[in-house]
Amino acid sequence: MHLTKQDFLETQQRIAPYIHRTPVLTSETINRLSGAKVYFKCENFQKMGAFKMRGATNAILQLTDEQRAKGVATHSSGNFAQAVSLAAKKLDVKAYIVMPSNSPSVKKAAVKGYGGEITECIPTLQAREDTVAKVIAKTGATFLHPYNDYDVILGQGTATMELIEEVPGLDFIIPPVGGGGLSAGAALAAHFFSPGTKTVGAEPHGADDAWKSLNQGEIFLQTNPQTIADGLRTNLGDKTFGILKEYMERIILVEEEEIVEAMRLTMERIKIVIEPSGAVPLAALLKERDVFTGKKVGLVISGGNVDLGQLGELFR
Amino acid sequence: MHLTKQDFLETQQRIAPYIHRTPVLTSETINRLSGAKVYFKCENFQKMGAFKMRGATNAILQLTDEQRAKGVATHSSGNFAQAVSLAAKKLDVKAYIVMPSNSPSVKKAAVKGYGGEITECIPTLQAREDTVAKVIAKTGATFLHPYNDYDVILGQGTATMELIEEVPGLDFIIPPVGGGGLSAGAALAAHFFSPGTKTVGAEPHGADDAWKSLNQGEIFLQTNPQTIADGLRTNLGDKTFGILKEYMERIILVEEEEIVEAMRLTMERIKIVIEPSGAVPLAALLKERDVFTGKKVGLVISGGNVDLGQLGELFR
Repeated sequence: MHLTKQDFLETQQRIAPYIHRTPVLTSETINRLSGAKVYFKCENFQKMGAFKMRGATNAILQLTDEQRAKGVATHSSGNFAQAVSLAAKKLDVKAYIVMPSNSPSVKKAAVKGYGGEITECIPTLQAREDTVAKVIAKTGATFLHPYNDYDVILGQGTATMELIEEVPGLDFIIPPVGGGGLSAGAALAAHFFSPGTKTVGAEPHGADDAWKSLNQGEIFLQTNPQTIADGLRTNLGDKTFGILKEYMERIILVEEEEIVEAMRLTMERIKIVIEPSGAVPLAALLKERDVFTGKKVGLVISGGNVDLGQLGELFR
Repeated sequence: MHLTKQDFLETQQRIAPYIHRTPVLTSETINRLSGAKVYFKCENFQKMGAFKMRGATNAILQLTDEQRAKGVATHSSGNFAQAVSLAAKKLDVKAYIVMPSNSPSVKKAAVKGYGGEITECIPTLQAREDTVAKVIAKTGATFLHPYNDYDVILGQGTATMELIEEVPGLDFIIPPVGGGGLSAGAALAAHFFSPGTKTVGAEPHGADDAWKSLNQGEIFLQTNPQTIADGLRTNLGDKTFGILKEYMERIILVEEEEIVEAMRLTMERIKIVIEPSGAVPLAALLKERDVFTGKKVGLVISGGNVDLGQLGELFR
């Protein structure tokens, strides 16, 4: 299957009534610190606080009536769980959510608040997949993959479409790379709608499966990622890897303290709440500032769902 | 001296090149929780992170060339210190800042970053006034009062002018009340530009000098305010009291835990960083939600300069 420009345009129209067109913010201080012209695409202001609302909405809108009647199921470390719960609720569909037990409590609470039915499991990919299989066997729900799904990738790509519409002539777009839904959507959207823009991924060193995968030319499966960027602990899937391999320039790896520093800068200077995953692109930009000096760079702030109680420890 | 509508219009024009016109945000969740239609005037996005940039800029722009050459001096628990430092820097004027030793470290660092020269003192009003007097004796700088100054009040009032321009027909405006610069400016601006809008102040119970002052008809001087809303620990001055007495409907007192809860709600739901003082209006709205049900209410988010390291303790 090959995604087309037309697929993106139709997706954008399909989900528009259900999502926010999020603002693009700039900061004189960040521009001065980085030497680049930086544009923050603020998906922390998206409904339920993250870009995942886009892909979840698109995927559910593509289901048949019969599928909708039996509900949807997914496993997610957090934001996709909330996104499926809220999108399902708005479309009057039942949502079954498998969540690893170490998910931030604010994310679990939000899933419940949106009416999602949670089943907890131990925090491994295997346990997540086994548990969701059981839920589906019991309910007949349709599985929604958090990222390795073309409808999800198309939905996530609309964030980059909006950024490109608002800021023409970007030299670079830097999305964070987790399972690859957002970053594959970004790379493809840039390819179709702003061919001169290079997509460079940003990934924590402690969860560098995508970096390794792109370097070795096949998917590297990490088993024990270690990063505070909880949205980026997942592995690539075959669909997201296929797109990244072709359309993503390269990946910049960042350290944990660089993520915390980028998060602090964003919160102190732009006065917006972002989750650690959302700070990874700014960390990458600052790490390789020489590459980006004088360039127009769009950063995708993936979300703002952070456990406020954790912040004190991070910023001690 | 009587401030006029024309004074506000001239102030707005005078300071426009030096400040941000800040956005007005809304939240479905907050509307649902409060039962009101709530509009957040986001002065946390103002330059240096708080409304005080407006008044400081206006006051410095009114100085003579001779005064400018000798610099300006002030005492401030934080935001006004930053505001004077940055406004002075932009207007090429030297700034001498007296800060109580318990000011948040992020605010001290910001003052230094903007080029302000800090003299620390013990955290009492007396020590602040004595120390600034010494600085002025030595330098010849012009004293800028953080709030009890008509040019400062006019400057702060422009935040409310913008809110009224953007959201016509507000039933209420709720500013936080500290020394009264923001709230007096708000009450007067509402009087001139939206006479049907009532201005209701919001104040911490632990720093309720303005509430007591309005009730007893003369200024009540508190000596040991206890609140996390560090911007609201100051007493009213005769100029701000005179305006509040005439143009402010009343004051709602809130408890510390209500301030923290409003701050948490704002950060979790609107995804913006606000300081405790900026959460006091939402706390007041939620406390008396019956009064505001179905009403259009503008809340002035005074600033976003919070020590991120403190947040963990607050939101434990």
